[in-house]
Amino acid sequence: MHKGKAYLECLPRDKTWELWQNSLTAAGYFSGLPVETLPVGQALGRVTAGCTYAKQSVPHYNGSAMDGIAVRAQDTFGAAETNPVRLTLLKNEDPFAPGGCYIVDTGDLMPLGTNSVIMIEDVHIDGNTAEIIAAATPWQHVRIIGEDIVANEMVLPEHQVITPPDIAALLAAGLESVDVVAKPKVTVIPTGTELVARSQDLKPGAILDVNSHMLCAAVSTWGGEPVRHEIVPDHYEQIKNAVAASLESSDMVITNAGTSAGTEDFTSRILAELGMVLVHGVAIKPGKPVVLALCKGKPVIGLPGYPVSAMLTAELFVRDVLLQRQRLPIPPVQEVPAVLARQLYSHVGVEEFVRVSVGSIQGKTVAAPLSRGAGIISSLIKAQGVLSVGENSPGLPAGALVKVRMFNKQQSDTLLAVGSHDLALDILGVFLKRQTNMLLSAANVGSMGGIMAVKNNEAHIAGIHMLDDKTGEYNISFVNKYLAKGSWQLVRLARREQGLMVQPGNPRNIQGLDDLVREDITYVNRQRGSGTRMLLDYLLPKQGVTSSNIDGYEKEVSTHMAVAATITAGAADTGMGIRAAAMALGLEFIPVSHECYDIILNFPQGDSTAETIVNILKSPEFRQEVERLGGYDLAEAGTVLAVN
Amino acid sequence: MHKGKAYLECLPRDKTWELWQNSLTAAGYFSGLPVETLPVGQALGRVTAGCTYAKQSVPHYNGSAMDGIAVRAQDTFGAAETNPVRLTLLKNEDPFAPGGCYIVDTGDLMPLGTNSVIMIEDVHIDGNTAEIIAAATPWQHVRIIGEDIVANEMVLPEHQVITPPDIAALLAAGLESVDVVAKPKVTVIPTGTELVARSQDLKPGAILDVNSHMLCAAVSTWGGEPVRHEIVPDHYEQIKNAVAASLESSDMVITNAGTSAGTEDFTSRILAELGMVLVHGVAIKPGKPVVLALCKGKPVIGLPGYPVSAMLTAELFVRDVLLQRQRLPIPPVQEVPAVLARQLYSHVGVEEFVRVSVGSIQGKTVAAPLSRGAGIISSLIKAQGVLSVGENSPGLPAGALVKVRMFNKQQSDTLLAVGSHDLALDILGVFLKRQTNMLLSAANVGSMGGIMAVKNNEAHIAGIHMLDDKTGEYNISFVNKYLAKGSWQLVRLARREQGLMVQPGNPRNIQGLDDLVREDITYVNRQRGSGTRMLLDYLLPKQGVTSSNIDGYEKEVSTHMAVAATITAGAADTGMGIRAAAMALGLEFIPVSHECYDIILNFPQGDSTAETIVNILKSPEFRQEVERLGGYDLAEAGTVLAVN
Repeated sequence: MHKGKAYLECLPRDKTWELWQNSLTAAGYFSGLPVETLPVGQALGRVTAGCTYAKQSVPHYNGSAMDGIAVRAQDTFGAAETNPVRLTLLKNEDPFAPGGCYIVDTGDLMPLGTNSVIMIEDVHIDGNTAEIIAAATPWQHVRIIGEDIVANEMVLPEHQVITPPDIAALLAAGLESVDVVAKPKVTVIPTGTELVARSQDLKPGAILDVNSHMLCAAVSTWGGEPVRHEIVPDHYEQIKNAVAASLESSDMVITNAGTSAGTEDFTSRILAELGMVLVHGVAIKPGKPVVLALCKGKPVIGLPGYPVSAMLTAELFVRDVLLQRQRLPIPPVQEVPAVLARQLYSHVGVEEFVRVSVGSIQGKTVAAPLSRGAGIISSLIKAQGVLSVGENSPGLPAGALVKVRMFNKQQSDTLLAVGSHDLALDILGVFLKRQTNMLLSAANVGSMGGIMAVKNNEAHIAGIHMLDDKTGEYNISFVNKYLAKGSWQLVRLARREQGLMVQPGNPRNIQGLDDLVREDITYVNRQRGSGTRMLLDYLLPKQGVTSSNIDGYEKEVSTHMAVAATITAGAADTGMGIRAAAMALGLEFIPVSHECYDIILNFPQGDSTAETIVNILKSPEFRQEVERLGGYDLAEAGTVLAVN
Repeated sequence: MHKGKAYLECLPRDKTWELWQNSLTAAGYFSGLPVETLPVGQALGRVTAGCTYAKQSVPHYNGSAMDGIAVRAQDTFGAAETNPVRLTLLKNEDPFAPGGCYIVDTGDLMPLGTNSVIMIEDVHIDGNTAEIIAAATPWQHVRIIGEDIVANEMVLPEHQVITPPDIAALLAAGLESVDVVAKPKVTVIPTGTELVARSQDLKPGAILDVNSHMLCAAVSTWGGEPVRHEIVPDHYEQIKNAVAASLESSDMVITNAGTSAGTEDFTSRILAELGMVLVHGVAIKPGKPVVLALCKGKPVIGLPGYPVSAMLTAELFVRDVLLQRQRLPIPPVQEVPAVLARQLYSHVGVEEFVRVSVGSIQGKTVAAPLSRGAGIISSLIKAQGVLSVGENSPGLPAGALVKVRMFNKQQSDTLLAVGSHDLALDILGVFLKRQTNMLLSAANVGSMGGIMAVKNNEAHIAGIHMLDDKTGEYNISFVNKYLAKGSWQLVRLARREQGLMVQPGNPRNIQGLDDLVREDITYVNRQRGSGTRMLLDYLLPKQGVTSSNIDGYEKEVSTHMAVAATITAGAADTGMGIRAAAMALGLEFIPVSHECYDIILNFPQGDSTAETIVNILKSPEFRQEVERLGGYDLAEAGTVLAVN
């Protein structure tokens, strides 16, 4: 074990990209691209490798563009209502003679000698005679050879993404195959002795390899052809051999994990041996320990191990390289201005990327930061955009105007739910999307954070569960106290069980709050200000329990799951929380009390969304779905408790 | 043969869509969707059929988030610089004892009894002792079980398009497969006795089936799974059987052609027999004869035969049905305001869709209408957007402010070339894109139209070839006369051959303009004002030829290709045009003269694009590429002839 050495040089992002792109360009990576010949019908979405030229004209013959009669234009000159011209109807097999005409349908070949079509609606046919009352101009209602595409003309230029009409044009021009830029083959090598490929093989300390699947999917999204290498353990020679072999068969190699300065991080040494390391360490967070190398003229990228870091750095340093290598267009950056919902701290010296939910609240676009952990995959899923805090910034205050780069995954309106989170909110989100196509995006900042977000018009919805220890009543006194202004409603969502979590089998035989003062029992507490802590502090005196007698009362953690995890880890015997947290970790649950989890709805007068939500809460389908989770009572769901 | 009956009722587009969507909704087409179970790794881009719930927490154990030492937080209380705390280093296999600690790497399982990690940088290790100078809080630098995803929590809601991070989340949550909405199977049936499947089998009057390939590609683009039926001839029972059989195996059936009121148009009768025809005829152009039917609860769509009509009506009546059926998001309409470059006539009573090129010229966004023919596939390829002229509008004047719905195919800046077209312009476009990534979009409106477009700042580039019959000089006098204002340059592109086109083998033995007055020879002329006509009218008197003695001098057509087609059709013996047109139709070419094809470059002062273009014109690569076409001399290409 040694003290990890820091990345000696961390380049800023823009300088890194410049160096990376210039080096790849100089190595010829973006020129003389390999070509693949495909049947035209299979070339959708591919990029033309060169210009394509028509082998035949379109149309390839002079054809009637209408149902009507084919005539020689000069035979019709002088025709008028007062001077009808009569032409002789010829049979298809008859040769043309001046003053003759043929019946033609749309698309029929123009009979030799004719050069104009008169619409059937304008012809009076009587036996073998066709009478017309207007002259025809040459080539009227005729599709002339090459009117669309002339033989030898360019059909598609080089480096064009082939669309459905392009396929029609290529085929019509007589081309059966087309040269397209070959998809770059990208091998993704998951490395790490701790990695396992299948969920069944997970043990504590082992990590499921999900990144290689995510990165392969990203490569597909960017037009590449991903190849997932099997997991390679942290063994220098094995990793080196895997990279070297992959370089032979691929246009790009990505290794995942093994790029930080930790114990078993070989990547940069290996890549330096196989080629040239251009960058090791970029001044960004997450994603700092990225390695960019050029081996045998091909890019090799060492991405960091945490999924969020891996995805972000792939977007920064893999995406546009792949797109350029295929001449696919680089999607334009979509930025929207927004008001930052909460203060953001940031390190000076690194550019920090913060994932956010974005919603429009009472006329204001609000960006609510999500979890910033590099390991929190769910934050990638919930995020609608990302904002960058520059390397010289120590952070941004709440209310700051920021620019959010949108992911543009969905085209729905977004409702921001900020406050205490509950699984029932996720289910509300599903029902809302079904009925209104609106997306619910939830950020967990606790009850008081939710009230403040509503106060500042930074949330549409806030879940709260706050006990007033004077009245024993939930939530109402708090919203009335803090939300004097604005138009909002407080609506009951659920009564949910709070209780003590204990090890399976309840080895210490804990029955209730009375037991917490026993000498053989250690407790883990929630932080001051949390709804659960408020409930505990309300209940203890009622049961005659003195908190200072509880071993561990001062040990605070900040989520239900942290309480459960503490018990699972054996660092405490019990702690209070909701039933769902106990169920998630297989702990036993001793019900102690109920609490009321309500939501504040913050919508302007006349907006029907609040009503829609209330109706969902009252619906039997929604109630059943939530109660199925266990520990929930929705009998009062949808009851309006307070209005402003 | 009978006079085609008109579509008795043509619904407006919005009413048609409403009826169509309501009928499909009522038939249950958008509910109870078929589900497919896929391995998670193959579900990229698919839509979740239901909500997915986590089978395991992520992380699934309490692990160190740092390289460092794992401690029991309470053992560290009171540590400070002035009061270091010393902990005993335990081996991995040792059980925890108070005051002990373990070395851990990032990701390592937290040893039982520990609940906090101190970064290795903050630890001084000396033999078996670890000295720290700051207290640790519980669970600091620890990834707690379920910190990312809690078991039983919703991972993805229903009807979400699966992205690369979603794949990571599903796998991490212990899911190996996921239920997604099945891709709708769409059978495309090309109908028509005149259709052939392969280019080799094309004869005059036969039509290559390109639409079915285009429509299958479009179905793929919209998430469906296309099945291309073989061509069915215009035979009532055969078409009916094909539709009936396809209905059994598909979620949607598209027939192509056979929907107008012509002779062999069975579609609507057949669909009425197999189900219910909801719409036959929509008040749009192109695309009027569309048929929308509901057979066995499935949509059956008869699309018109012309490719442009087929694509437009598919976009209007197929696309969103397919997207809705899969719960894929409907892409938002991207509209940009633009100034119409030319007057547009329109029929009252139908909504007309006009494809346009869009470019920004001297600060003004300009929409230049492309060919409006329903058969002109190339107009689909060149178009950057489409505008709609409402059914009550008789048309729009030049300069009208219009809204263009953008196709958003490419992300490049567009240069509009308006004027006389030449194949060399297409090649210029390729070189421009290579060097600047700008897209050249060319509209053919003749030389004078090009000058006017520059005058009105509606073109960046105008190709012209206009002979001044007083001076015998090309182009210069015209630009000086018409373009007094503005900043432009006139630049030589090429000298190109004009000549007489004749049947292969030159059966009439035509040697030059002198022969045009021969009694056995008929001529086809270009329209007044065209460059070719100007050249002819300049040359004839010089050669002592009187135009009134030429049989056919008054027969005017408006393109080089129409002249060539007239000769191919036997309706004239010869006509004047450029060599490329003769080559395209395999005609012989008798050179008569050279003309100068020049381009006006219309860019503001300081814009480097004009210089870039001039440099391209001067480059040997460009000159070779154009001269390869035959009939071109580029010795003077890039010479600036006039500047304003």
